[in-house]
Amino acid sequence: MSLPLLSTMMDVPLTVQSILERVRTLYREREIVSLMASGKDEAGNPVPRVHRSTYGQVADRALQLANALASLGVTQGDRVATLAVNSYRHLECYFGIPAMGAVLHTVNIRLHPDQVAWILNHAEDRVLIVENLFAGMIPAIRAACPALETVIVMGPLPAPLEGVLDYDSLIADFSDDFQYPDLDESQAAAMCYTSGTTGNPKGVLYSHRSTVLHSLVSAPKDALNVGEADTVMAIVPMFHVNAWGLPYTCALAGAKQVFCGVFSDGHNVAKMLEQERVSITAGVPTIWMGLLGELDRAQEAGTPYDLHRLQSLIVGGSAAPEAQIRAFQTRHHLTLKHAWGMTETHPIGTVSTLPPGVSLTSDEGFALQAKQGRAVPMMGLALLSDEGEPLPHDGHTMGRLMARSPWVAASYFKGEGQSNFIYIGGQLWFDTGDIATIDGRGYMHIQDRSKDLIKSGGEWISSVDLENALMAHPAVAQAAVIAISDPKWDERPLGVLVLRPGADAPGHAELSAFLAPKFAKWWLPDAYEVVLALPIGATGKFLKRELRDQFTAYRAAGTAER
Amino acid sequence: MSLPLLSTMMDVPLTVQSILERVRTLYREREIVSLMASGKDEAGNPVPRVHRSTYGQVADRALQLANALASLGVTQGDRVATLAVNSYRHLECYFGIPAMGAVLHTVNIRLHPDQVAWILNHAEDRVLIVENLFAGMIPAIRAACPALETVIVMGPLPAPLEGVLDYDSLIADFSDDFQYPDLDESQAAAMCYTSGTTGNPKGVLYSHRSTVLHSLVSAPKDALNVGEADTVMAIVPMFHVNAWGLPYTCALAGAKQVFCGVFSDGHNVAKMLEQERVSITAGVPTIWMGLLGELDRAQEAGTPYDLHRLQSLIVGGSAAPEAQIRAFQTRHHLTLKHAWGMTETHPIGTVSTLPPGVSLTSDEGFALQAKQGRAVPMMGLALLSDEGEPLPHDGHTMGRLMARSPWVAASYFKGEGQSNFIYIGGQLWFDTGDIATIDGRGYMHIQDRSKDLIKSGGEWISSVDLENALMAHPAVAQAAVIAISDPKWDERPLGVLVLRPGADAPGHAELSAFLAPKFAKWWLPDAYEVVLALPIGATGKFLKRELRDQFTAYRAAGTAER
Repeated sequence: MSLPLLSTMMDVPLTVQSILERVRTLYREREIVSLMASGKDEAGNPVPRVHRSTYGQVADRALQLANALASLGVTQGDRVATLAVNSYRHLECYFGIPAMGAVLHTVNIRLHPDQVAWILNHAEDRVLIVENLFAGMIPAIRAACPALETVIVMGPLPAPLEGVLDYDSLIADFSDDFQYPDLDESQAAAMCYTSGTTGNPKGVLYSHRSTVLHSLVSAPKDALNVGEADTVMAIVPMFHVNAWGLPYTCALAGAKQVFCGVFSDGHNVAKMLEQERVSITAGVPTIWMGLLGELDRAQEAGTPYDLHRLQSLIVGGSAAPEAQIRAFQTRHHLTLKHAWGMTETHPIGTVSTLPPGVSLTSDEGFALQAKQGRAVPMMGLALLSDEGEPLPHDGHTMGRLMARSPWVAASYFKGEGQSNFIYIGGQLWFDTGDIATIDGRGYMHIQDRSKDLIKSGGEWISSVDLENALMAHPAVAQAAVIAISDPKWDERPLGVLVLRPGADAPGHAELSAFLAPKFAKWWLPDAYEVVLALPIGATGKFLKRELRDQFTAYRAAGTAER
Repeated sequence: MSLPLLSTMMDVPLTVQSILERVRTLYREREIVSLMASGKDEAGNPVPRVHRSTYGQVADRALQLANALASLGVTQGDRVATLAVNSYRHLECYFGIPAMGAVLHTVNIRLHPDQVAWILNHAEDRVLIVENLFAGMIPAIRAACPALETVIVMGPLPAPLEGVLDYDSLIADFSDDFQYPDLDESQAAAMCYTSGTTGNPKGVLYSHRSTVLHSLVSAPKDALNVGEADTVMAIVPMFHVNAWGLPYTCALAGAKQVFCGVFSDGHNVAKMLEQERVSITAGVPTIWMGLLGELDRAQEAGTPYDLHRLQSLIVGGSAAPEAQIRAFQTRHHLTLKHAWGMTETHPIGTVSTLPPGVSLTSDEGFALQAKQGRAVPMMGLALLSDEGEPLPHDGHTMGRLMARSPWVAASYFKGEGQSNFIYIGGQLWFDTGDIATIDGRGYMHIQDRSKDLIKSGGEWISSVDLENALMAHPAVAQAAVIAISDPKWDERPLGVLVLRPGADAPGHAELSAFLAPKFAKWWLPDAYEVVLALPIGATGKFLKRELRDQFTAYRAAGTAER
C-alpha cells in the first residue's frame, strides 16, 4: 500500500486571532450598540442608556486588554473568568482573551456566589472580570477563591472597592499594538460549565478550531443567515455557551451587533429591535413569551412596533411550542427559527430551516418549524436504542441522540463524566442525554431529556410533546409534564400547569378532549395540578427534578381510562 | 510559563467523506441535471440530451466507483485522473475518488495530447477516466504514459476500443456498501495543474481540509450565497480548479446542480438557465459575452428568456469589464458578481459583494463590482513592494498581491516553483504574481499580472484598467494592452483591438479622447493595432506573451504626447 499523499496546502491554524484581525481591518466602522445600566430609578431598577461603539474600537481595546493581561502575568492556557452581561466590553473579552492564547471562561451570572466560587476554583481561574452590577459578589468570591489573583470591574462602582482594578482605566494604560503569539488550533480558546442539573457542573473547553468552524457553519442562509448587512441582537447571554457563538459568527461576517444587557423584558427588547433595525435576534422561549405579550399589547393599543427588518427570531435552549411559533407568524408576521444545541456542542447542532417547496405558513411548515431542525454541515447525529443499537431515521422511532463533530466535546475538563462519551464502531460519540426522532429528510425532534422521559408499561411517553400541546390551550400559560409512580404501569404522566392571568382552570375531561386528537389514549396525563409558577434554573429551563420531588408522593385521584 | 491548555473538543477530521455522507442521507431526492452529448447532427456537432439524476443516485454510484477502483488496486494517495466535462459522472468522481483516500486529478481537456501525457506522467496517475468525446486521445496518451495502468471511458463509444473499461458497466458490478477508510484531513483529496503560461505546468494538491473549509467559506450570503433552495449551474469547468469548488459547496448545502457539458454557447446556456430555473451560475467573462449576445438577440426578437430566478452570475478567471457588468444589469436586470482566485488558492480568495448602503446600480456600486472584491473569512491578503515591504491598503497604491490561508498552496507537487512562496515575518505567503490595490474597506482590485504590467519611466501602468476602459467603446469587442519597448521610457502601452462586427476602426485621436477622462495622460497607449482575434489559452485567458512576441519589434508610428 502506498503511503497517504499529503497535500501542498499551507498549515494555517484556525484561530480567534483571525476573527479579530478581520473586524479590525475590514469592518472597522461597523457599529456595536450596547444597552448599559446607568444608575437606578426611584424603584431601584436599573436605567437603560445606549452606548455606541464600533468593531474598530472594540478590536483596538481587545488588543489593549491583551497587553494589560500579559502585564498581569496572564499567559497561554491561563483561565480568565468573566461574570458579565452582553455588552461591548464583554465582546472585547471575547476577542482579546483568546487572541493572546488565554482561555475566556464565561461564568453564569445567575448562579449563587457559592456556586460561582466552586466553578472558579475548579477552573483554577487566575483573573476574574466582573460587571459592576455584580460587584456585590466580589468579597464572598475572593474569600472562597484563594488562587484568584486579580479582580477587574467593568463599569463604574458607586463606592471604591479595595484591591480591584477598573477595566477602562486598566486598558487605557496599554497600547493596541499587540504581537499575536503563534497558536495551535486545538488549544483552548474558551470554557463554559454545564448547568449541572445533576451533580456538579462540568467544564467544556472550546478550541480555536471549534470556534472558527462553528462560526463558519452558523453563517449560511440555511443556518442563521448572517451577513454584513445584518444587525444581530443576541439576547441569549454571552455568559453561557458563547451566546450560541453569535459574537464570533457576526464578527466573521461583519454584522452589526446589538446587546441589551440586563434589559431583556418585552418592552426593552421590542424597543431595541425597532430602534436598531435588527434583522436577526436570538433567545430562549421565555424571552419570546415576554416579547409576544408586548407586541400583542402594542398592537391592541394601536401603536404597533415597526419590525419589518426582523427576518428571524432564533429560538433554542428549550423547545418553542408550535402555538408560540404560530402566534408570532400569524399575529405579527415574524418567523421563529429553532436551533438546537448544548454546552457540549458549542452549541449549534441543528437549525430548522424549511426545505424548498414547503411554505412557512402551511401546517407542514409549522410542524417542521416546531422540530429542532437539520444538522449543520460536519455535524453527525445518530439515534441509539437503550441496548446501544443504531435506530432508523424514520420520523417516529425514538432513540438516544448521539452527536459527533469537530465542535462537540470529547470529554469534560479534568476527565470528568466519561460515561457521556461512547465509542461506536471505533468512533467517539457524545451522548446528549436527549431522546429524539430524526425523519427521512434529517429533521430532528427532541422528545425529551432521557431522565424526564415517562416510561409507562414499557413504552416511552414524551413529556415535551404533551407540554407543547397543552400550551396551545387558551387557559394555559406554561405546562410541565412529569412522571408519577404507578403500581401497574410503573410511571404515568402528570400535567403541572400555570394558568394565563384571569383564566379558569380547565377540567381533566376538557384537557383530555383537547389533547385526544393528537395522541394515543395511553399518552394522556392521568391528572393535572395547577401551580403559581414552575421552578426555573440558571439557564432558563424548567427544573423538572424539583417538580418530581414536589409531587413524589402524588397519586392520581381517579383511575384514568387507558 | 504554563503549557498551552488543549481543548476538550473531538478530533474529527474535515473530509470529503462527510460531504458525500451528507448528500447521501439528507439530500437524496435533490436533482442533478446534466446536458449530455448524444450523437452528432448532420453538421457533425454534438446533439444535447437532458439527463436527470439525484444526489442519492450520484452518491450511491460514487461508492460503487470507490469499490471498483479499490478492486483495480487503487489505494490511498494514488492519483486517478479525469479528462471530462461537467456532468453527473464527473460529480461521482468528485465524491468517490477522494472518499476512498485516492486523489482526484482533473486534467484540462483543452490541452494537446502531448501536454496531457506530460502531466499524467508528472503526476504518476495510475488510472485515467475519460469522457467518450475525448476517446480519440487515448491511443496517443497510452503510448506516452507507460505507468498508466487503467483507462475507463465515461459514456458509450461509437466503436469498441481495446483495453479500456466502460465506466457504467464497471461500477454496476460493485456494491454501494463501502467502508470509508480513516483519513487525516491534511491528506491530498484533489490535484490540479496550473495553466503553465510560463514554463511547465505545476501541480497543486488540495487537501480534504482545504476542500471542506473552502466550501464552508464559499456558501454564506456575502460570498456565493448557496443554500438548499438554490439551483446552481457551474459553467466553469470541473476539469480546472474544481469548478471553483462549486460541486462541493453545492453538495454541502444541498443545492440542485445543473451541468451543461460541452454546451456552453449563449443559446444553450440561456435555455438551461430558463428551463431549470437556475438561481446561481458561474463562468468566465467570455461565457457571459456569449450569453449577453443571446439575451440581447432574444429581447430584440420580442422573445426574451424568463430568468427571474437568476440571482447572480459569478464571474472569475479574468476580470469582467465594468461595461459588461452594466450591460447585464441595465438591459437584463442580472447581477454579475466578481470572484477572484487561482489554481493555487483552491480558488476562491475574494468575492465582490457590495457593503450595506451601496446600491447595485449606483456609480459607486458598479465601480465596486468591477473590483475583485473582499477576502472571504480566513483568507489573508497583503500587498508588497518590489523590495518586499508591506504597502498600504489605500485603494491606489499598487503592490504584489500575497495570499495566506488554509486553502492556499505552500508549495507545488515535487517541490517545484519555490520562488513563489515567501516568508514574511516568519509566516509563509504565496506570491500570486498579480499586481493589485486594496482599499480601506478591503476591496481588492487586480491591476495586472506582474509580468503584463507596463513599466513606463519607472512608473507602473495597469494594462487591465486600460483594457476594461477600451472595451466600453462601442466599436471595440475585445482589447489587450501590452508593453512595447521604448528607447526613452523603457516600455510604453500598445492597444491591440478586436472590433465589433461591422464596426469601423476608431482613430488614435478618438480613442485617446475616449480614455482621457479616466486616466493620467502618460497612461494612454502610444498606438493601436486591430487584429481579427486575440490568442486565447486553455483556461480561456488572453495569451499576452504571444501578443508581445508578435509585436516585439513594434514601434509606434507617431511620438505620443506625454
